[in-house]
Amino acid sequence: MGTRKLVDITQFIKQSFGLWKAQRSAHHLAFAHFEAVESRIKVSEITPDDSRVIELCRSNQIEPKRAIMPFQMTWEGHSDWDDGEVMEGSCILVPIPDKDRPNQGKLLRDQGYAEMIAAVGNYNITEDGTFILITEYKRAAAEEKIWFVNPNLRCRVSLIKTSNGTGVVTASFSSEIRSLKADSNF
Amino acid sequence: MGTRKLVDITQFIKQSFGLWKAQRSAHHLAFAHFEAVESRIKVSEITPDDSRVIELCRSNQIEPKRAIMPFQMTWEGHSDWDDGEVMEGSCILVPIPDKDRPNQGKLLRDQGYAEMIAAVGNYNITEDGTFILITEYKRAAAEEKIWFVNPNLRCRVSLIKTSNGTGVVTASFSSEIRSLKADSNF
Repeated sequence: MGTRKLVDITQFIKQSFGLWKAQRSAHHLAFAHFEAVESRIKVSEITPDDSRVIELCRSNQIEPKRAIMPFQMTWEGHSDWDDGEVMEGSCILVPIPDKDRPNQGKLLRDQGYAEMIAAVGNYNITEDGTFILITEYKRAAAEEKIWFVNPNLRCRVSLIKTSNGTGVVTASFSSEIRSLKADSNF
Repeated sequence: MGTRKLVDITQFIKQSFGLWKAQRSAHHLAFAHFEAVESRIKVSEITPDDSRVIELCRSNQIEPKRAIMPFQMTWEGHSDWDDGEVMEGSCILVPIPDKDRPNQGKLLRDQGYAEMIAAVGNYNITEDGTFILITEYKRAAAEEKIWFVNPNLRCRVSLIKTSNGTGVVTASFSSEIRSLKADSNF
């Protein structure tokens, strides 16, 4: 209590590498509806000289050498709203720390596959080690908080807001447990 | 981003007064089970000279004049695990700030009704305005994070851990929307 965990972006991303088994609940607030999603997530390192990293930096007019700890996220899951369909996707994420403050900056995301759109978010790591990411889209804004309870349990709260920031449409919570067994299919 | 919201315990509790409609999802991690709970919560002010406040302080060997902003929480809800049964309860909560640091201290809770046990938690308000409460019981520990997204939306993440703090048994998330119409039945 009261002690500060100084976590930097490099440490935070390193802690995220691996396979995770996620339970996610989405609360659709206007209808008081609950949605349950189970998924597997893989977070893996990619090298800063990977062509996809360089291209993503250039398409955002950012010097590729400012990128640190780029990574790839891949997921596969299903929702109780649509039992038959498997949701899957993958994207590249590239942190660009501010020059003067390493624990805040931009997070570039490529288009990936599965209906993702390219986006640039602003991240910030609070003094208690919570990673906060705010991403503005044309018609909506997303605010995420991610923190580690211990090295094998990560929590993530995501809010989808209207673009003017007033209304929250969906609030969702994901609890992610590190999966220790390697899964060759993933 | 990066600006600090200095929120004190008094402000935090005042923001909580009123009626709330809550959607809560509990993730029972060992079984990857989802539980959905809908409830109404009422948070109301009680005066520091209320006999229940004085008694609760005395039973914890604390000077009643150290109490600030005592309040009562009342709830009524139902879970999708047990559709027939209505869960309801009420308790008194009494913050006792540390003498030197007002944004951390103890939170006393009385036994209330509905299977509650009396408890003393340690609270802390982080620099970004998140209220963190850690309560240790004989065989378990609870860690809660509560924050306001806006004055009418509160989020709460609760973790139930084994008493040695290693394992997290349940992770739950509650999104709480301020209910604007008064409800005479509550």
